[in-house]
Amino acid sequence: MSKPLNIGLVGYGFMGRTHSNAYRKVSNFFNLPYKPVLKAVCGRDEAKTKAFAEQWGFESTENDWKKLVARKDIDAIDICTPNDSHAEIAIAAAKAGKHVICEKPLARTVAEAKAMLDAVQAAKVIHMVAFNYRRTPAVALARKYIAEGRIGKILNFRGTYLQDWSADPNSPLSWRFSKKIAGSGTVGDIGTHVVDMARYLVADVTAVSAMTHTYIKSRPLQAGGVDKLGAADKNASGPRGDVDVDDEMLTMLRFANGAVGSIEATRNAYGRNNFLTFEIHGERGSIVFNYERRDELQVMFADDPADARGFRTIYTGPAHPYGEGLWPIPGLGIGYTETKIVECYDLCKAIASGQQPSPNFADGYRIEQIAEAILHSGQTGHWVEIAS
Amino acid sequence: MSKPLNIGLVGYGFMGRTHSNAYRKVSNFFNLPYKPVLKAVCGRDEAKTKAFAEQWGFESTENDWKKLVARKDIDAIDICTPNDSHAEIAIAAAKAGKHVICEKPLARTVAEAKAMLDAVQAAKVIHMVAFNYRRTPAVALARKYIAEGRIGKILNFRGTYLQDWSADPNSPLSWRFSKKIAGSGTVGDIGTHVVDMARYLVADVTAVSAMTHTYIKSRPLQAGGVDKLGAADKNASGPRGDVDVDDEMLTMLRFANGAVGSIEATRNAYGRNNFLTFEIHGERGSIVFNYERRDELQVMFADDPADARGFRTIYTGPAHPYGEGLWPIPGLGIGYTETKIVECYDLCKAIASGQQPSPNFADGYRIEQIAEAILHSGQTGHWVEIAS
Amino acid sequence: MSKPLNIGLVGYGFMGRTHSNAYRKVSNFFNLPYKPVLKAVCGRDEAKTKAFAEQWGFESTENDWKKLVARKDIDAIDICTPNDSHAEIAIAAAKAGKHVICEKPLARTVAEAKAMLDAVQAAKVIHMVAFNYRRTPAVALARKYIAEGRIGKILNFRGTYLQDWSADPNSPLSWRFSKKIAGSGTVGDIGTHVVDMARYLVADVTAVSAMTHTYIKSRPLQAGGVDKLGAADKNASGPRGDVDVDDEMLTMLRFANGAVGSIEATRNAYGRNNFLTFEIHGERGSIVFNYERRDELQVMFADDPADARGFRTIYTGPAHPYGEGLWPIPGLGIGYTETKIVECYDLCKAIASGQQPSPNFADGYRIEQIAEAILHSGQTGHWVEIAS
Amino acid sequence: MSKPLNIGLVGYGFMGRTHSNAYRKVSNFFNLPYKPVLKAVCGRDEAKTKAFAEQWGFESTENDWKKLVARKDIDAIDICTPNDSHAEIAIAAAKAGKHVICEKPLARTVAEAKAMLDAVQAAKVIHMVAFNYRRTPAVALARKYIAEGRIGKILNFRGTYLQDWSADPNSPLSWRFSKKIAGSGTVGDIGTHVVDMARYLVADVTAVSAMTHTYIKSRPLQAGGVDKLGAADKNASGPRGDVDVDDEMLTMLRFANGAVGSIEATRNAYGRNNFLTFEIHGERGSIVFNYERRDELQVMFADDPADARGFRTIYTGPAHPYGEGLWPIPGLGIGYTETKIVECYDLCKAIASGQQPSPNFADGYRIEQIAEAILHSGQTGHWVEIAS
Repeated sequence: MSKPLNIGLVGYGFMGRTHSNAYRKVSNFFNLPYKPVLKAVCGRDEAKTKAFAEQWGFESTENDWKKLVARKDIDAIDICTPNDSHAEIAIAAAKAGKHVICEKPLARTVAEAKAMLDAVQAAKVIHMVAFNYRRTPAVALARKYIAEGRIGKILNFRGTYLQDWSADPNSPLSWRFSKKIAGSGTVGDIGTHVVDMARYLVADVTAVSAMTHTYIKSRPLQAGGVDKLGAADKNASGPRGDVDVDDEMLTMLRFANGAVGSIEATRNAYGRNNFLTFEIHGERGSIVFNYERRDELQVMFADDPADARGFRTIYTGPAHPYGEGLWPIPGLGIGYTETKIVECYDLCKAIASGQQPSPNFADGYRIEQIAEAILHSGQTGHWVEIAS
Repeated sequence: MSKPLNIGLVGYGFMGRTHSNAYRKVSNFFNLPYKPVLKAVCGRDEAKTKAFAEQWGFESTENDWKKLVARKDIDAIDICTPNDSHAEIAIAAAKAGKHVICEKPLARTVAEAKAMLDAVQAAKVIHMVAFNYRRTPAVALARKYIAEGRIGKILNFRGTYLQDWSADPNSPLSWRFSKKIAGSGTVGDIGTHVVDMARYLVADVTAVSAMTHTYIKSRPLQAGGVDKLGAADKNASGPRGDVDVDDEMLTMLRFANGAVGSIEATRNAYGRNNFLTFEIHGERGSIVFNYERRDELQVMFADDPADARGFRTIYTGPAHPYGEGLWPIPGLGIGYTETKIVECYDLCKAIASGQQPSPNFADGYRIEQIAEAILHSGQTGHWVEIAS
Repeated sequence: MSKPLNIGLVGYGFMGRTHSNAYRKVSNFFNLPYKPVLKAVCGRDEAKTKAFAEQWGFESTENDWKKLVARKDIDAIDICTPNDSHAEIAIAAAKAGKHVICEKPLARTVAEAKAMLDAVQAAKVIHMVAFNYRRTPAVALARKYIAEGRIGKILNFRGTYLQDWSADPNSPLSWRFSKKIAGSGTVGDIGTHVVDMARYLVADVTAVSAMTHTYIKSRPLQAGGVDKLGAADKNASGPRGDVDVDDEMLTMLRFANGAVGSIEATRNAYGRNNFLTFEIHGERGSIVFNYERRDELQVMFADDPADARGFRTIYTGPAHPYGEGLWPIPGLGIGYTETKIVECYDLCKAIASGQQPSPNFADGYRIEQIAEAILHSGQTGHWVEIAS
Repeated sequence: MSKPLNIGLVGYGFMGRTHSNAYRKVSNFFNLPYKPVLKAVCGRDEAKTKAFAEQWGFESTENDWKKLVARKDIDAIDICTPNDSHAEIAIAAAKAGKHVICEKPLARTVAEAKAMLDAVQAAKVIHMVAFNYRRTPAVALARKYIAEGRIGKILNFRGTYLQDWSADPNSPLSWRFSKKIAGSGTVGDIGTHVVDMARYLVADVTAVSAMTHTYIKSRPLQAGGVDKLGAADKNASGPRGDVDVDDEMLTMLRFANGAVGSIEATRNAYGRNNFLTFEIHGERGSIVFNYERRDELQVMFADDPADARGFRTIYTGPAHPYGEGLWPIPGLGIGYTETKIVECYDLCKAIASGQQPSPNFADGYRIEQIAEAILHSGQTGHWVEIAS
């Protein structure tokens, strides 16, 4: 019989929904030591918070996160707010002895991330940062192949994260285009997902040389602050505000194990929706992944017979990571839902075992160092070493 | 404020899980007139039923479906049992004034299906048959294009449903290989999904000429009756039982609107997992779909400029059917979950409006007629007209 | 040192060009026992024949194929005319002791094909029918896998040949739409290519049940008779003539080895260009091919480890059939040219060895029987057994 | 009636074959002002040169390129030797008043390339460098779309050229791994093809920041110097020599028009055969190309209706660049042959018109500057501006 894990969620935007979704579902799919309970959701707007609680089944609401953090009946705080409040909430939650899961990127700056890491370590709570894409079964399968040496020593990594939901100059100036709130643009929003993948699959990143670029200098102001992404209305005629973050990042990478690589991320790639991809070459094979076809992993083994060498397209299912809980036939369909359910599963296991999950705040801090190095390199044009 | 819709679910196998999943989720994603409540689940094994209820959050359990059907606090009966009990339960539920949703195929025989249709029509309840794949947003988009005339008059249809979870001769003799329980093999289990697609997208089917074939004549007996599909254990050495249904069906089709077509379905297609596909040619364009890449629809418009004609790959999202509730960015990921959530959404709307949904038992009955015609043609080698 | 093989070509249309191309190239790529010499080309229009000879490097021209056939300096007659003259020319050539290669389909009717086969057998000359697509290296690789038992006993075959060059009702009434000249429509023109593939890869076809359909009943008359295919001008306003052949064929198949299958062929499939495909399932694996991506063969081996099973995409190159002569890196690019060069290579080897190549006139005759059975079944709606 | 263009070819390796192939074919496909005549081939080994002449139909042979260049009956010199003799031959040919076509990369160094450019400019001959991949019809179509503004102002470019023919450490030390002969490794051999594409499609490259890496430090010595690429024998036990060139290059790019980009090239990418790709994002659309599927171009137009936006897959044919000469149906198959035929066609047109073709030696020189900048940046880690 699993124990309850009382969740206090902060933020009811897109990420608040996806996390609530995962909490409601995880125990349906996996046998868990802890079963999440939607104890409370917190948001500034009382009516909207109540409506959200009603829709997702939270037992109670709060309108001040400090009150939420202080509640005795909460075991874990889940931070789904924009980036500018991650640090304050996480640090307070840790001090209150709560486990903390925080949306990515961990923070706006390295300094914030360091303070967060220090706080959770001092409090000896479990901490996790929500880079969910690495929990796609196909990505976990890539990790398994690599860990088992099936493509040999890794030589290089090429990753992209391309979207087009904001490619239109008339899509709104959401908080994602404001440095003060977001910290950065594509670097933090989507580039860090690829950095997380690279660290998960290859090795730590030790140096970067990057370019950053802002294609659209102003966007229509957005009323109300809702983060509707691709569902947002376009507005060609209203007042506009300045964009002060990057629309595009390109970086070269050096890894701790000697491998090299590159990442491109942009939200101005018309026709690409959620094109999070990687290609990895090893001394005995290669792996290719594209999240837009996330049921599939491509792998090539150099040791195959000469007349039958080529990329295999593997559809993940019961024979692959997380297959014990997900669908019984490959190709039935892994969706966004499943990536978040698996994340939640791993969180519950970490809390039960007392072992920190991965990626945790130490990873989030390291990724923030890398992100800051990318931004710095983008400005200076120099290689930036990232001290460990 | 949406009203409760009290669900009584019969069966806790794979389909019981997927329906429970949908009921738990639908009101999170869509604004509904009715909100499903997991009132009771019914199964023969008391302990397993209780465990299922616990895992999925049902308020109560029953071990005799007749008791479930008799309960006053149930609005709708959901039938997720093997095919041999569909008729009996559905008819009783209708007589008790419950709305009925039944897994596909509706019945083992035309006679059963007819009795079920008569019962729900007599009772004036809402009825639905769970051909969920047509509710994939990309398939609904295909329907929209066709309805709007964007590919012109339809000339032909080619569909497949190919799987390999039972291609191994040592995968167990589940109930799906027993005519007494399932009614037929691939014809009913997966072929009917494609027939449903064909009727949804093209027109009713009026005649068939078919082949059916059993590749694997015996399989290991399965202890306990669990339907684990691709997660089932293989067993080369145990006692075996005879397969008395089809492993493969091939049929040609005539449609009511003059179009022609074909369907192939088999569970012996190594490398195909859930390869439910169709290709439709019209007088002004074509449409192609493959469920294994269900975020995508391919469409070609003949009226495009001569130097820019070709299939477009559309990723479904906010601009497409069901985009009002699903993910805000295309490519985030439609999974199996979403097809069942959308089905549930349409069921709730039907109950609220009093308008029968599609496909309902009339469709299920018609599809059973077509399935029986396919089986009959497979035996006789003749074209079989299907009277309306 | 290879001996000259003096070619007399009849017909300078599209096929005349592709054959000339192959003769000019084959000895550049392969070491041959015989080296083709472009001795003479024959066409009715003197000026056009001379221009063609000039462009392709023929040593001489003829305007009466009977004179060509009578020439002592010709070793082999290559028939690239429309279907209505195949029989007459081939029979005369055989009687004159010439080897004969004839474009597909071999004839308009079974009777013609039989007479042609009798003639070449009586004359003991080498004979070949130009089903070139089976000579794509990826198709030859499929054959090799099957012959070596690498996908086990074959269960089924599904083939298509879809084009759209004549999908527009205003594309001209070329000879390909006239029964008198062509014998049939899609059945002979493209369907026979798939039948050839099926016989090459699976086994002989023993029975068919088919549908045939004419979508476009009239087309603009074409001045001059040139067969420009997709490069033809459209003409909405001119005089039209009736189409008396099929635009679409669908057939089910029974094979001599017990396998089953289906073929669809149509030239009304908007968006499909030269979509000649097949999918074959065996007891231990599957093979998939699409000529539009002809460098690639997909193969799935059921014996692969459970966590690494899926279709491999093999790019053909030096490790595969015909790799001894073609490009030294896979993916450099197999084009239409190469399929015809390989055909020519196999012709030269056959003449040198005195062993009939495959497919020869016996195959062409058999395929004509199958084609006629398809047409007959399309009219009657009955299964048609094809006596051997 | 076209005039003869007498070709003197130097080198009978892989490139000598592909150029001979093109000369023999170009007038079969295109109407030309000049018709190439295979006047003489030159190679050091007398027997092999004669055999090559016999196989490809050259009228005569030479064993000293100086004699070839001095011949009065030669109009154009075609240089297909390894890189270390490009400069000497090209300069002598220009001085002798011959037109010159030279294989890529133009030279080993910027200094060599400058001397070559000076020579052809002084001699006022036509000059061309053989970056054939831009002549793939799909690439020419991309150029057309961009030139017509159909995807708007270009924002960025991402290119790759990945191969695996030398990924095995036991594949031989061909001249391509020797700096003295080749000048560089992947940078010159394959990276320059992508640089050529980038300049053709986007704008000139003005600055680079790069990484270069040698994965395999020694390889088996190769007897005889033959460049068999993927068809070479592997040899694990023989004597080995050092590799002194790059196996991998990664570079970021700045373009003259403000666009940014990146290129990766490596011959150590298992599973990639001739994976020359690009992805271009513009303000109103995107273009994607992969040479391994060279019949296809993918294009996305942002102005498409909201419910029908996505990449179109265009198969090139009569409606596209070079369609006037190539195959009459898209998908029949563009192979490597066709890219070289088109190159030859453009060369003949340039000679007839007196207008320099593109890319010519000025382009080749510029690309050599960029290549050298990449190598320099790879060593220093700094951005390198490339003065114009």
